[in-house]
Amino acid sequence: PAMSASIKTFVFFDLETTGLPQDLPKVTEICLVAVHRCSVEDPPRDPATGALQLPRILDKLCLFMDPGKAVAPKAAEITGLNNSNLARSEKQRFDARTVALIQEFLQRQAQPVCLVAHNGTDFDFPLLKAELDHQGQDLVGQVYCLDTMKAMMDLDGSLCPPARGAYSLTALYKRFFKEDPKDSHFAEGDVLAMLLVFLYKAAELLDWAGTKCGTWAEVKPMYSVRLQQSR
Amino acid sequence: PAMSASIKTFVFFDLETTGLPQDLPKVTEICLVAVHRCSVEDPPRDPATGALQLPRILDKLCLFMDPGKAVAPKAAEITGLNNSNLARSEKQRFDARTVALIQEFLQRQAQPVCLVAHNGTDFDFPLLKAELDHQGQDLVGQVYCLDTMKAMMDLDGSLCPPARGAYSLTALYKRFFKEDPKDSHFAEGDVLAMLLVFLYKAAELLDWAGTKCGTWAEVKPMYSVRLQQSR
Repeated sequence: PAMSASIKTFVFFDLETTGLPQDLPKVTEICLVAVHRCSVEDPPRDPATGALQLPRILDKLCLFMDPGKAVAPKAAEITGLNNSNLARSEKQRFDARTVALIQEFLQRQAQPVCLVAHNGTDFDFPLLKAELDHQGQDLVGQVYCLDTMKAMMDLDGSLCPPARGAYSLTALYKRFFKEDPKDSHFAEGDVLAMLLVFLYKAAELLDWAGTKCGTWAEVKPMYSVRLQQSR
Repeated sequence: PAMSASIKTFVFFDLETTGLPQDLPKVTEICLVAVHRCSVEDPPRDPATGALQLPRILDKLCLFMDPGKAVAPKAAEITGLNNSNLARSEKQRFDARTVALIQEFLQRQAQPVCLVAHNGTDFDFPLLKAELDHQGQDLVGQVYCLDTMKAMMDLDGSLCPPARGAYSLTALYKRFFKEDPKDSHFAEGDVLAMLLVFLYKAAELLDWAGTKCGTWAEVKPMYSVRLQQSR
């Protein structure tokens, strides 16, 4: 973990899905936003107001997927994605070529990278791992993982577990920026909100990441549905 | 050209560069936003105001590049990108892997695709072609091209050439939406402004595209700087 002090790129990502973990969800939308460490250490600010701004240099990959299973009504309602509009848009499955695109995007960044997701430990990391596993693949190279929900709770140092609601992305964003985040439950909207929350606590989080980051190798798939092998 | 009526995906794109055509510019930023025909035919509107909205389903790829040559001061000023911040962010060149990423992104879309760029005929199309050519590569499959500047001028049917300024992206955006576009000269900002301008005239432009689209095969590289062959 000490090696994680050398993280060169933070890749903020979010998944929208067909439903909850007990439903063996499939991904409907993925958004990855890669930010070099130098932009985290010295984030831009509005010259007039001093307000935090998004870094100018920001690689971005957003993809929509046909999940190949029913989108739960609640998921469709909050994400705006359903089987009908995904099919009409002729989206591909989360297939081998999707994996290749994500790998190529990650490998383009200065190494090593750290994947950052809000509630990533319990949701986004194991689900991305399951989708990769389903294709018989995995990320390559040393990859770190940081869950902004867990990190922010740890930084606040509460001994008793606080209400998780207080550490939702929306709650944190409102606490720091005094307004609602834009485009909630759109993967890109949530990623950009998470990035701003991260930048607001950049010094503490970089310090935290130096010793407490997890690794992608430790992440277990949320579920395992391997393609049938022919005998 | 009649075949272009079958265009399934419009890929709006924009390049930021080191300078003007006479300087043999290199790309510093590329943004591609892919929209399925169904979202162009029936763009979403704000239920309350009726204002045009961006489609919900929108694949997006934004990449920054180290251009390997000096960024002209004027280009650095308007784009916010310079040799110093691109190097500090350890960006890659527009190399073979960049081409692979763009190819994979395009091939993921429902085919055939039409590349759409504002002033694309005179700038973005030949420059993208030159960057591909420099890597000894080209786009694969049938690819169409639509220059929104030329198309909008043609739709207005002026016999004498109007002042080009009246057909700049900013001028069109202000004419249709009565405000300035956001993030001008950021590739993604310009792409999203172009997409909204396109959606505003969607019916006319789809009709125009059916018979007047160009093809990628006809595009000539802006310049040719082939890698030296060993003898």
